Amino acid sequence: MLWSGWGDPAKARELPPQIRELLHDLLGVHEPAAPAASFESVRLAPVALSPAHLAALADVVGHERVLTSRAARIRHTRGKSTPDLLRMRAGDGSAAPDAVLLPGSHDEVAALLRLCAAERIAVVPFGGGTSVVGGLVASRSGFAGVVALDLARLDRLVSVDAESMVVTAEPGLRAPEAERLLERHGLTLGHFPQSYEYATLGGFAAARSSGQASAGYGRFDDMVVGLTVATPSGDLDLGRAPKSAAGPDLRQLLLGSEGVFGVITALRLRVRRVPGRRVYEGWRFGSFREGTAALRVLAQEGPLPTVLRLSDETETMIGLARPDDIGGGSSGCLVIAGYEGPAEELVEGPVEGPGTASLATSVEGRRAGAGAVLARMGGVPLGTEPGRAWEHGRFSAPYLRDSLLAVGATVETVETAGFWSALPRLYDAVRLALLGALESPLVMCHISHVYETGASLYFTVVAAQKGDPVAQWERAKEAVNAAIVTAGGTISHHHGVGRDHREAYAAELGPLGVDILRAVKARLDPSGILNPGILIP
Amino acid sequence: MLWSGWGDPAKARELPPQIRELLHDLLGVHEPAAPAASFESVRLAPVALSPAHLAALADVVGHERVLTSRAARIRHTRGKSTPDLLRMRAGDGSAAPDAVLLPGSHDEVAALLRLCAAERIAVVPFGGGTSVVGGLVASRSGFAGVVALDLARLDRLVSVDAESMVVTAEPGLRAPEAERLLERHGLTLGHFPQSYEYATLGGFAAARSSGQASAGYGRFDDMVVGLTVATPSGDLDLGRAPKSAAGPDLRQLLLGSEGVFGVITALRLRVRRVPGRRVYEGWRFGSFREGTAALRVLAQEGPLPTVLRLSDETETMIGLARPDDIGGGSSGCLVIAGYEGPAEELVEGPVEGPGTASLATSVEGRRAGAGAVLARMGGVPLGTEPGRAWEHGRFSAPYLRDSLLAVGATVETVETAGFWSALPRLYDAVRLALLGALESPLVMCHISHVYETGASLYFTVVAAQKGDPVAQWERAKEAVNAAIVTAGGTISHHHGVGRDHREAYAAELGPLGVDILRAVKARLDPSGILNPGILIP
Repeated sequence: MLWSGWGDPAKARELPPQIRELLHDLLGVHEPAAPAASFESVRLAPVALSPAHLAALADVVGHERVLTSRAARIRHTRGKSTPDLLRMRAGDGSAAPDAVLLPGSHDEVAALLRLCAAERIAVVPFGGGTSVVGGLVASRSGFAGVVALDLARLDRLVSVDAESMVVTAEPGLRAPEAERLLERHGLTLGHFPQSYEYATLGGFAAARSSGQASAGYGRFDDMVVGLTVATPSGDLDLGRAPKSAAGPDLRQLLLGSEGVFGVITALRLRVRRVPGRRVYEGWRFGSFREGTAALRVLAQEGPLPTVLRLSDETETMIGLARPDDIGGGSSGCLVIAGYEGPAEELVEGPVEGPGTASLATSVEGRRAGAGAVLARMGGVPLGTEPGRAWEHGRFSAPYLRDSLLAVGATVETVETAGFWSALPRLYDAVRLALLGALESPLVMCHISHVYETGASLYFTVVAAQKGDPVAQWERAKEAVNAAIVTAGGTISHHHGVGRDHREAYAAELGPLGVDILRAVKARLDPSGILNPGILIP
Repeated sequence: MLWSGWGDPAKARELPPQIRELLHDLLGVHEPAAPAASFESVRLAPVALSPAHLAALADVVGHERVLTSRAARIRHTRGKSTPDLLRMRAGDGSAAPDAVLLPGSHDEVAALLRLCAAERIAVVPFGGGTSVVGGLVASRSGFAGVVALDLARLDRLVSVDAESMVVTAEPGLRAPEAERLLERHGLTLGHFPQSYEYATLGGFAAARSSGQASAGYGRFDDMVVGLTVATPSGDLDLGRAPKSAAGPDLRQLLLGSEGVFGVITALRLRVRRVPGRRVYEGWRFGSFREGTAALRVLAQEGPLPTVLRLSDETETMIGLARPDDIGGGSSGCLVIAGYEGPAEELVEGPVEGPGTASLATSVEGRRAGAGAVLARMGGVPLGTEPGRAWEHGRFSAPYLRDSLLAVGATVETVETAGFWSALPRLYDAVRLALLGALESPLVMCHISHVYETGASLYFTVVAAQKGDPVAQWERAKEAVNAAIVTAGGTISHHHGVGRDHREAYAAELGPLGVDILRAVKARLDPSGILNPGILIP
């Protein structure tokens, strides 16, 4: 992973000419940004932890598992939001941890937490490092130092219960490796967020991730049936059944807790069979309003595709749903509908009606059913070509960001969710906030996660960098957060809270809700060493 | 509701001769139980609250809303577990509240909680009074008295958002009345637990209820998208979107909290369209093992019926799945599979394949698909007659209990849930515990709630009353609880924790999990007035 950008630098791409033209003519992007600082020139503070502290940490995990090198510290600095990248490009390593720890077991994690609690060392649990909400920037104030607790060595697929379709995995397992290990058993999680190439299973759970195929496979929190968690006050082991009436569901208190209550050391996850057949196709709607109505009917009446995404007029025009062909957009509003299922139809039973037995769950049956709804709601089928283009570019958008930052454009995403009847208000509020806070920005939006009662809204905004681009974006972000709170949406559908949404989250939760979190925090992490400054205001 | 039994006494039924014979010959039930005490003879303690306390409570809700009559107190004593009924039949009113309060608004509930906290009066939130886990028997120790907070006047359907398919309702609304009000809008919750005739929406949420059609409509906690809660420390208002990544899901901390954190004063609930078509049918499997495998495949591969229930060999033999014809059982293991959906097929779209467009969601398409799976797994179709019989008797079983108690048999239900691979162990453990603790009991079991990763097990046990029937059952219950904990199941799939599962729940959660609940409790209800002795050990 590029330390000052996204992913593998080899995959970086030139912007196509029509996008350069648009940036120049429409957004006023004239000056390229200052070149990114070299790795060698990144400014780091000296290691704040004393030799005695480092020795005590090494006593737990071994000397070679306590890293204080420049390389290790820089690679664990900040996450992957646009302000994070802008700061790293400017050579600002001020948020670097003093050391990176590499525990190899639950017991080592637990021992490190006890030690850090006793010595008042702040701990930042670190999975894939892909937070886009400032979730990796802990407060130093009052602590002897800050360590990144990198879970990379906890990367095993521990066991597979094929009868229950439940697997046990460790938190540091990266998503692509998890899929490779599961595929040997014919299984998949079906969880493909844009961070897929780098993110870890523990991070997905701690941040309530939601993937591009959430309509079919559910959100990551739907997949978690059990959690083992190490806290400074002891261990938690939650989840004896898929669902229970035995009190509150404490799994749902740990999911989304972003490392402030404890460190997830094992996950029990619902899996599915690897689909033998996948079809992704495109549909066009005349307007975002019409397309939204169609998605709503699909979510409420079914059958629901596995992947479902609707771009608004601007996003469709730019062609963002197919990042590899960016700039080659079209009119109207593009829907991507994907269907995944078994390769072969189920065996037909004795029930009458030839050929009908398997249609309720098959790719073709669901595709026909959903297609009928989309057509009834005014959609025009575009065939499978747009689907293939979307699939091909589904993890490309973040690479595009690096290219845009380099030419002097700021690009960032913001997202929210709400009930269907609130979506138009929410859509207008966020757009207005961005249009008001930035100079002639390009604002695009899509819906990519639907529920019976509502959906997410995901905005991408591009604008010319003006003055200090971090300060420029922070003003826009503040306006967006306020707009979401006022319009009644949630401050995040799948990015999380971190540091960037903390105040808006408090407004969403209300003072007593915040106090609940504080009470739990005080019990599990009484010295407050876990991710100070994250999530809880 | 009968004060010492279940439901409307007019619906009570004689036991059929073959059941009387079975009780006599197989279970050794010879002596009828002592006749139930008369209402007039129930022993009540004097009202413990002082006139000053009663006057202060009346200041909040009005004099006529503070009831201290014998009738009001007896009707709010205990719930509907078998030990509850046995104690009431014996005239034991010792658990009666001192007064029954009838607030009419959120603000009145909040004011009552503040007053009771200041005066150390214990508060038992009261919905339908149908708890079967001792959830209505609060500890008196250290309190000036105990009041039942009856939510019967908070019974409005407040608003309907047909676009989002979300309704706002008050907690005291009873399920049948909720369905009547929703039906005017063409809507339904689809939530039909056995307590349906009396239970309230607030109770469903507070106790994480799950209904007979959970395969199609989900559990009640799946339906809750928002909650307003009054606590002694202030109000909570949770749920701005169907799903969110903004921190832990605090809705899931209040769901299942059984009134110990606060009183739910409004619910925002996902609704569905009233189905225009319903088909319930029967299937027979050779063994519980084979039937369980078939249900597992349906849950994992689909299509899932709306109602799905599998009786084991004993329950099938007795015919418990059709309580109106009890005694007329059969061999093998009976499956009831119900399908609900739109009356008319969806409009067909432009997608090729005549007649296929609607099958993925239609009753017939799902029925054919599920039927193919059931047949493939060894099931034999029995047509719709067993389905009709099940539907007709679906709320009858509790009435049967009153008849059994009267003739000298003890009957009670226990339930759990676990992952599929753990179910055989769990099934054996609970049966063995019952067979060991009671003299030649009849033990029946069914699965009626399935998930991709596991299912519930619901046992009904009948035995001759011996000695003190309450003590007799308490010994059996203790053995069952221990068996469930040891076998790795959850202590309740849908009955809840209350007082009867409190210690087993603590074992399931672990000491740190219990401490989380205590920390939340201390913040929301610092004087501990809400349901003392319930849920939290």
